[in-house]
Amino acid sequence: MNYTKILEEIKEEVAPLIGKGKVANYIPALASVPNNKYGIAITTINGNCYTVGDAEEEFSIQSISKVFTFAMAFKSIGEKLWQRVGKEPSGNPFNSLVQLEKENGIPRNPFINAGALVVTDSLIHNNFNPKKSILDFIRKLSGNQQINYNTEIARSENEYGHRNYALAHFMKSYNNIYSEPDELLDVYFHQCSLSMSCVDLSKAVLFLANHGVVPNTDEIILTTSQAKRTNSLMMTCGMYDASGDFAFRVGIPGKSGVGGGIIAVIPGELGICVWSPELDEFGNSLTGVKTLELFTTKTGVSIF
Amino acid sequence: MNYTKILEEIKEEVAPLIGKGKVANYIPALASVPNNKYGIAITTINGNCYTVGDAEEEFSIQSISKVFTFAMAFKSIGEKLWQRVGKEPSGNPFNSLVQLEKENGIPRNPFINAGALVVTDSLIHNNFNPKKSILDFIRKLSGNQQINYNTEIARSENEYGHRNYALAHFMKSYNNIYSEPDELLDVYFHQCSLSMSCVDLSKAVLFLANHGVVPNTDEIILTTSQAKRTNSLMMTCGMYDASGDFAFRVGIPGKSGVGGGIIAVIPGELGICVWSPELDEFGNSLTGVKTLELFTTKTGVSIF
Amino acid sequence: MNYTKILEEIKEEVAPLIGKGKVANYIPALASVPNNKYGIAITTINGNCYTVGDAEEEFSIQSISKVFTFAMAFKSIGEKLWQRVGKEPSGNPFNSLVQLEKENGIPRNPFINAGALVVTDSLIHNNFNPKKSILDFIRKLSGNQQINYNTEIARSENEYGHRNYALAHFMKSYNNIYSEPDELLDVYFHQCSLSMSCVDLSKAVLFLANHGVVPNTDEIILTTSQAKRTNSLMMTCGMYDASGDFAFRVGIPGKSGVGGGIIAVIPGELGICVWSPELDEFGNSLTGVKTLELFTTKTGVSIF
Amino acid sequence: MNYTKILEEIKEEVAPLIGKGKVANYIPALASVPNNKYGIAITTINGNCYTVGDAEEEFSIQSISKVFTFAMAFKSIGEKLWQRVGKEPSGNPFNSLVQLEKENGIPRNPFINAGALVVTDSLIHNNFNPKKSILDFIRKLSGNQQINYNTEIARSENEYGHRNYALAHFMKSYNNIYSEPDELLDVYFHQCSLSMSCVDLSKAVLFLANHGVVPNTDEIILTTSQAKRTNSLMMTCGMYDASGDFAFRVGIPGKSGVGGGIIAVIPGELGICVWSPELDEFGNSLTGVKTLELFTTKTGVSIF
Repeated sequence: MNYTKILEEIKEEVAPLIGKGKVANYIPALASVPNNKYGIAITTINGNCYTVGDAEEEFSIQSISKVFTFAMAFKSIGEKLWQRVGKEPSGNPFNSLVQLEKENGIPRNPFINAGALVVTDSLIHNNFNPKKSILDFIRKLSGNQQINYNTEIARSENEYGHRNYALAHFMKSYNNIYSEPDELLDVYFHQCSLSMSCVDLSKAVLFLANHGVVPNTDEIILTTSQAKRTNSLMMTCGMYDASGDFAFRVGIPGKSGVGGGIIAVIPGELGICVWSPELDEFGNSLTGVKTLELFTTKTGVSIF
Repeated sequence: MNYTKILEEIKEEVAPLIGKGKVANYIPALASVPNNKYGIAITTINGNCYTVGDAEEEFSIQSISKVFTFAMAFKSIGEKLWQRVGKEPSGNPFNSLVQLEKENGIPRNPFINAGALVVTDSLIHNNFNPKKSILDFIRKLSGNQQINYNTEIARSENEYGHRNYALAHFMKSYNNIYSEPDELLDVYFHQCSLSMSCVDLSKAVLFLANHGVVPNTDEIILTTSQAKRTNSLMMTCGMYDASGDFAFRVGIPGKSGVGGGIIAVIPGELGICVWSPELDEFGNSLTGVKTLELFTTKTGVSIF
Repeated sequence: MNYTKILEEIKEEVAPLIGKGKVANYIPALASVPNNKYGIAITTINGNCYTVGDAEEEFSIQSISKVFTFAMAFKSIGEKLWQRVGKEPSGNPFNSLVQLEKENGIPRNPFINAGALVVTDSLIHNNFNPKKSILDFIRKLSGNQQINYNTEIARSENEYGHRNYALAHFMKSYNNIYSEPDELLDVYFHQCSLSMSCVDLSKAVLFLANHGVVPNTDEIILTTSQAKRTNSLMMTCGMYDASGDFAFRVGIPGKSGVGGGIIAVIPGELGICVWSPELDEFGNSLTGVKTLELFTTKTGVSIF
Repeated sequence: MNYTKILEEIKEEVAPLIGKGKVANYIPALASVPNNKYGIAITTINGNCYTVGDAEEEFSIQSISKVFTFAMAFKSIGEKLWQRVGKEPSGNPFNSLVQLEKENGIPRNPFINAGALVVTDSLIHNNFNPKKSILDFIRKLSGNQQINYNTEIARSENEYGHRNYALAHFMKSYNNIYSEPDELLDVYFHQCSLSMSCVDLSKAVLFLANHGVVPNTDEIILTTSQAKRTNSLMMTCGMYDASGDFAFRVGIPGKSGVGGGIIAVIPGELGICVWSPELDEFGNSLTGVKTLELFTTKTGVSIF
């Protein structure tokens, strides 16, 4: 199937949405991204790549990074990870402290901030050089050695990241963070600052559409069962407090970031990434969600 | 594929779990069900049926009924239904009032009690005789004209159902219930009291594995898109506060009831129902969940 | 001390506030009360009475009734009452269900709706004819045999009182309500519907300023210790979610109702009642609170 | 009145309670305090001092310090303080984050940890050398120049104080903390570490029993109105989540600390401090609360 025409159609249809969301503005480096950027990239398991718009332009992946650090931790720690983080949708905004307090410092799932902090903490705890490891992992998945951290964004996040510091200290008070909050946040803000393009991300997520195996290198990242379970988690928890609506409208596993990117997979077929910086009220790319809804509707692909 | 051997294997493997859960005891009629009952039934789209154990014995379907009343309401009201009920996992126990209060009387989704009350209220609002309509619908889906309400259970539920009365009055205070609470609860407790077997339920859910169409009669219950969306909802919200864990371990859409039944579908292939009365801490059948986990693992079926 | 001049002064000073609050409008009978009604009555322990404005006009006492039913229950049941209701400020709006759920159906204190329902339930449980008993008690305290229920208001409350029904059913699900919700709510809506004037109420509350003894009859309603404790409860819990602000600004024990009345006592000296129908955001009389603040400031009376 | 005999009586009566509470153990320096320490000191406005037991032994005042830093801030900032902190009982444990999140980073009152951090932050913001100022203020109030910080305890608090760091960062994310969390916590942990005896504290609190004026020096710390309001705040919010129960049983304004101390005042008469290290479930001195209950009962003093 040649997806180019469908992607062009979708681009045209969603154009009127540009201007109806709000670019993340909690740090200057994100606030300055032009609101009308828009790109889609699809990479299929058999290696074809289809793009439209600004698909090769780098943007800040932010919370999309949670999928990759989770995969690293799940691979190395396995089921023991669940002693420190849950698997349930949170039913609350992504950086909520309420649930964390009720549940004794165990975050609901690895895709909310608190859970991602625990995941990154586990990488630090098991790893000599987490910043290097994360970068190596991402470069390998996407086959792009030029990918790098945006240190200006990482520094900005650190300056305005008091809520994440609060989460880290709070979980540490429950002994669910092992490293020092300062060190943890340094790694975490770096992973969020990764600059990648839609093309990079559509490749990087492809192993989740392929039973855990990177298609062109045959490297096994996760077992079949682990890959399926990671997709289940994205399906139920990947879009913050709008995960149910995304599952309802789009019907495939996905993960968003406040930089305006969304990655998603159609199991057995392809990885997809869409980027549009304006966010909806839940912190997901407004046009990005619509793009993926149109994509599954037009192609008729569905897991159900 | 002949599923009989796999079902026999599973039955043997889960046997040690019997005795580790707790039969629902909030009404006498449920408390008196023997804890060691166990049945599975599979009905495939092409009409084959495979069973093991007590698959033909009737039990109280309880919250499984929410799927059927939801399908009736979704069919007749369509997207307008979402003005009165959400699509998000609740992140709270199934009869919680907390979220309802924070969110002005709009329940999180149609598969928690509050949401199911809104769904049933919409049936009453649009329908001359809701108790008859629900029964007709269920009989048609399962092809069994003998299915009936268990009025003793309905009466018992009414007597001990103060929390459901509280939910109804509470939502009515937000104008999100139109009928009188007494009338609404009467219909609701009847739908929960439906007595059906695993075989009945594996047939009744089959339209959701077949794009909304009942296979042997070709009757269209829901559109393809509506059926897909109903499955998404079951995937994210069907197992109360353990929906994420169920998605993670089992990986298919399902819905449980405190009578110990669970229905699930493998899209494009089959409907399945398992029954084992003992519940886990989340109110889902302990052995039932394990049964479905083993089923997807052994058959390798997966939507991801 | 002749309070007439101070009351006249206060009346003048608060006049500009009329129009800045909002008359309760959840039932027609309350909504139709003119917003500019204003009265104060003071009755001293030695029997003097000072009034200004509409101090002899009857209004709906609403939640002020909670003080009187509490006194009846405290007198007859004593400390056992605390097995069913707490003594802590709720920190939440007066008809919140959230806390009730977290705390297993035990309301925070007797002056929020849930707690008052438990109090009234205990009167029903211990009493042959609660509606008659409550009326007799109020008439005796105020020395006015003409006081009566406003049955139109009671009927209205019943029609719009779904949240109170929700509270009753919810607590009954925790076995903390003994009577049938319909019966309980009938008594409760009647006690709220009592029509009394500022003069009546300033007399009725006087026993709490006099160590539990009605001054002119020497009848002991509560022991010294019980009266002191009731005042403590009013001080910490009497003004819904603005109890701390009231204690801070006014500094004496008081209890408000959505009819716009507030009663308060200066221990050892007097009972006071102010009435002004417009409410602030917390459901307390806007001008009433200011009136009492000016009263304690101008007279210099203080318990601290 | 000579209080010595009453204090001796009380000491005897409460003796059986020793062993029924739990010494704070979250830092080693507190955990090592002998559980059977017990002292009371009363200082009257006219300068008499009555003691019993370990009334001259220093202990860690902990949250009692919140009253003194509040008085400093209230004096220098006045009513503007209320833009950053509320006056309502919290209805939640003393270090809860839940309410803070619901209420946009504005703590409920100055006597819970979050509120005390805002108060201390305001001192830092307005003051050249907060640690010195606080120490000077305390020494002046108690007339004891030997009072000092316990730097070992301050260091310990810092090491185990992740929840307080979480509170500070969390409020900073709402722009309700101006200083750097590290600096703020350093001052805060120092104020909590102050070592004082019952005698010191009964003198230090005396200005609140005397309309804001230190009796023996006539120095005006707060205006009459401010002192009255501070007492109201202690009455409604001074004992964490048991403020209502303390008001009910004891009936006077008080403030506790996890070191086992409680200060209280009888307006117009005296300041009192009791110390007994074992805490009840709410974090208040178990024997201390009982001591004060017996004191108000036996002396018959009451503000109501």
